[in-house]
Amino acid sequence: MLKQPQTKYRAFPPVQLEGRRWPDAQLTKAPVWLSTDLRDGNQALIEPMDAARKLRMFDLLVQVGFKEIEVGFPASSQTEFDFVRKLIEEGRIPDDVTIQVMTPAREELIERTVQALAGARRAIVHVYNAVAPVWRRVVFGLEVPQVMELIARHVGQVRRLTDAQPQTEWILQYSPETFSLAELEVSHQACETAITAWGAGRPIILNLPTTVENATPNVFADQIEWMVRQFADRPEVVLSVHPHNDRGTGVAAAELAMMAGAHRVEGCLFGNGERTGNLDLVNVALNLYTQGVDPQLDFSDIDAVRRTVEHCNHLPVHPRHPYVGELVYTSFSGSHQDAIKKAFAARREGDVWEIPYLPIDPKDLGRSYEAVIRVNSQSGKGGMSYLLESEYGLAMPRRLQIEFSQVVQRVMDRDGKELTAADLWQLFRHEYGLDARNVIQHRVWEAAAGDDGQRRVQLSANIDWQGAPCTVQGQGNGPIDAFASALSAAVGCPVRVIDYQQHAIGEGADARAMAYVELRLGDSPAFFGVGTDSDTSAAAMQALISGLHRAHAAGWATESAPEDAQCAVVVA
Amino acid sequence: MLKQPQTKYRAFPPVQLEGRRWPDAQLTKAPVWLSTDLRDGNQALIEPMDAARKLRMFDLLVQVGFKEIEVGFPASSQTEFDFVRKLIEEGRIPDDVTIQVMTPAREELIERTVQALAGARRAIVHVYNAVAPVWRRVVFGLEVPQVMELIARHVGQVRRLTDAQPQTEWILQYSPETFSLAELEVSHQACETAITAWGAGRPIILNLPTTVENATPNVFADQIEWMVRQFADRPEVVLSVHPHNDRGTGVAAAELAMMAGAHRVEGCLFGNGERTGNLDLVNVALNLYTQGVDPQLDFSDIDAVRRTVEHCNHLPVHPRHPYVGELVYTSFSGSHQDAIKKAFAARREGDVWEIPYLPIDPKDLGRSYEAVIRVNSQSGKGGMSYLLESEYGLAMPRRLQIEFSQVVQRVMDRDGKELTAADLWQLFRHEYGLDARNVIQHRVWEAAAGDDGQRRVQLSANIDWQGAPCTVQGQGNGPIDAFASALSAAVGCPVRVIDYQQHAIGEGADARAMAYVELRLGDSPAFFGVGTDSDTSAAAMQALISGLHRAHAAGWATESAPEDAQCAVVVA
Repeated sequence: MLKQPQTKYRAFPPVQLEGRRWPDAQLTKAPVWLSTDLRDGNQALIEPMDAARKLRMFDLLVQVGFKEIEVGFPASSQTEFDFVRKLIEEGRIPDDVTIQVMTPAREELIERTVQALAGARRAIVHVYNAVAPVWRRVVFGLEVPQVMELIARHVGQVRRLTDAQPQTEWILQYSPETFSLAELEVSHQACETAITAWGAGRPIILNLPTTVENATPNVFADQIEWMVRQFADRPEVVLSVHPHNDRGTGVAAAELAMMAGAHRVEGCLFGNGERTGNLDLVNVALNLYTQGVDPQLDFSDIDAVRRTVEHCNHLPVHPRHPYVGELVYTSFSGSHQDAIKKAFAARREGDVWEIPYLPIDPKDLGRSYEAVIRVNSQSGKGGMSYLLESEYGLAMPRRLQIEFSQVVQRVMDRDGKELTAADLWQLFRHEYGLDARNVIQHRVWEAAAGDDGQRRVQLSANIDWQGAPCTVQGQGNGPIDAFASALSAAVGCPVRVIDYQQHAIGEGADARAMAYVELRLGDSPAFFGVGTDSDTSAAAMQALISGLHRAHAAGWATESAPEDAQCAVVVA
Repeated sequence: MLKQPQTKYRAFPPVQLEGRRWPDAQLTKAPVWLSTDLRDGNQALIEPMDAARKLRMFDLLVQVGFKEIEVGFPASSQTEFDFVRKLIEEGRIPDDVTIQVMTPAREELIERTVQALAGARRAIVHVYNAVAPVWRRVVFGLEVPQVMELIARHVGQVRRLTDAQPQTEWILQYSPETFSLAELEVSHQACETAITAWGAGRPIILNLPTTVENATPNVFADQIEWMVRQFADRPEVVLSVHPHNDRGTGVAAAELAMMAGAHRVEGCLFGNGERTGNLDLVNVALNLYTQGVDPQLDFSDIDAVRRTVEHCNHLPVHPRHPYVGELVYTSFSGSHQDAIKKAFAARREGDVWEIPYLPIDPKDLGRSYEAVIRVNSQSGKGGMSYLLESEYGLAMPRRLQIEFSQVVQRVMDRDGKELTAADLWQLFRHEYGLDARNVIQHRVWEAAAGDDGQRRVQLSANIDWQGAPCTVQGQGNGPIDAFASALSAAVGCPVRVIDYQQHAIGEGADARAMAYVELRLGDSPAFFGVGTDSDTSAAAMQALISGLHRAHAAGWATESAPEDAQCAVVVA
């Protein structure tokens, strides 16, 4: 059993926040995004990116539209240092993109960090230090005043070093480490100390990390709203958040923090990063998008983004990952499929997007509708008929859907495997005998009007009745009716057409007719028959024979039907 | 580029909720959990579980501690029907566990569903129908009064059918489909209609699904608080939530909903389910656990749970999945590693868990500390020394950590690959020559006291100096000092010991001494030497020779040192 949580763990205390405003806020614009794929993401990889993979990631981030990109930890290794130099010296940073680098608050590392940035047009130097109680007590053995002294000293050093490289436009980013675990007053004091050491009025980003998620996301929102109030009248201060995802609520924490007033959000594509990952920026951006807000990032080919990220990180994206996983646009449930099918049919171009079970149009992200509906043993008729319609153009009558779904269900119950559209189409062709050519040739001509004066036609057809060729003849008010009566005579049992539908598949010279007939043979239950032909009459006649075959196969045709004299005219 | 979201998508309107209370609430007890792994999870699999996999999942759920388990959709297929019968007829349902089955609101399916439950001790029949506007308008073409008539009719049918099987204790669960997208008043009316048709005062679960996440989680919390207020005085009503994860905020939605008063939570293990999945129940349960609340579910061997779930679902759990992914207890960052190392050292048994970067003790979930710290090119010294300490018992002096971390960094910069503890240990042994046996034999005896009257020792040792055996002699205030002066004489250059540390590795007869010496050769910078031996003096001497070899290899020993007469007595 799990250990006693009451003694080993404790709840994070709530924030005392009077007049909380964020629960009434709505998100109406995109924040400033900072990608830390190349720093916080990279440092958490089993095999961090080499220079080639780093470059590929950098180019992707630029292409997606990031304007602030944390590119590394140049003081940590030669590889990291060289990569920053490469970006600058080879002119790979577009004019509207600012790079950011991180440095621990240690003098020799700060020096090397600023060296790495020589020649950059604009750069953010990201200094952090630990302010939370556990770190102060256990890791560093420092009291709060000593922490503040360190901040003043190290930020002061950054200021002196960057002042000596005036060709670069410098921005300081200061992160009070594990903000979410620290006393708000201490974080506030740390930020004020950094501002003072950097120089009041100079541009500064105060970045507030969860580092490790430790409370429900509303607590983080309260913390952010508290901080936002402290800096409300300082236009030079950008308040940034840096959520992680240890409690699986990183996205919520970011959204509620934005509602609480955060201006800027740090994270990684698809949530790479230490442990459970950094905030997934794609998720937050597309959440905004589906609420009618322009995210200012372009994921219109999300699969290409995914492939590059998987290549660079050597980590997979999960099949259920929001917006991008293989399965996230897929409905296997029959009732879901049914609703999607109907809503697609009702939707007109320009409508607000309101397709059930699809919070976003897959096409907006470069995905197709192909994967939207997939058929497994739990699916029912909706998905099966949707797939046959979307992939093969079939518009099956509702009762045919029910009939054929039982055929599908039997296969499913036996095999337990997913059926693709191609599998279903093959099963359908087989069940309804679409590959058999049963009507070899036919002729229809006007017959004498009946006693009621209505127009009547006479039909004669060479058909293949279960392998035996024969000619049948009949009269009716149209070709289908005439063929039904011809078949009735041939099998010696009335063939009654209950319902009949036909539609075209394809266009122009390739167009074919698809005919669906629901019939009864004598007292039999209803059977569907399906036929297809370039000639609409032939398609209908094929459908009748298909239905008759199926009734026969189910035991409803007379045993003697094929061979005996009930087949009116037997052709040699 | 993404299409214009302003026209295609729109924000979900906020809830008008006066006197909102949930942001001030704290979670203090576990909800009733309902696992729908065998229903909502199963229906979303590419290959739904066969009977064997279903049974394995059922047994796991029971073992973990679920008291309510949705076992399927018995009217949907023979496989599903048979599985429910099997559980009942083979007596596989423990007395304190209640099974739940789902049925669409259609008469023939309701009938078959209740049939499937014959003989169950206690059962929840879960009826749902669509109440949200898009479904009413597009999917079913129904007005609100017609929706209410259907609810009354179908719930009435469930009541009649279940009344006819009084040997079972029946509970109704009613879900207004896509509650989160529906007008609150319509959902409320639907719930009241279900209550009336089922019989006021009889036990009923009102289950409120997001079905598809469509807003930030605070909006869902507002919706739940609104509903909770409607049913505040009805003890027979259990308010349940059923979040999905389309916006990546399912866990947050569940937590805020519980704060808003929900009694019961539906979901799946590790968040399997349609599209992006159902709520991850493991995540929510362990979030509670880390806040000091007993989740009433047992994940003390989480990897065994994961393996069974992966086997049943044929879907992987992602390496960064909260609490269970391969990487979620791993820190690659040097500063993180450093903090973890110090906090582990400071922690005493019985302390509240406060280890930086580890929101939960991996041991509580049956994980080891082995994977907590892993070393890649971004790690710095902390992780490397932690791994060597935890796996090989080395307590390296801080400056040795810095020295050796540069050796590690060079290998990293060259190879770019993660180094395991074994890799690091091999590198360490090689760098410090631990496998060489440089001190063949030695003897120490008391010498005459010096002029200052202090005790002095005389030392003579047969050593292997870079392949050449020789005997060295020296005096000092102890064996190390004496050996240093013997070596000074041998190499013709003063060997000064700056620092010296030693500790035991292993216990009893297997114990060995591990010695670390920091020395300078003449004016050289400091070099570390490391030695190990069952004899503490020999270990120290080995360390001195190791350090001397390293200084020599770095170009600080005189070229002639090995061969010439400075080696006092050369043995044949």
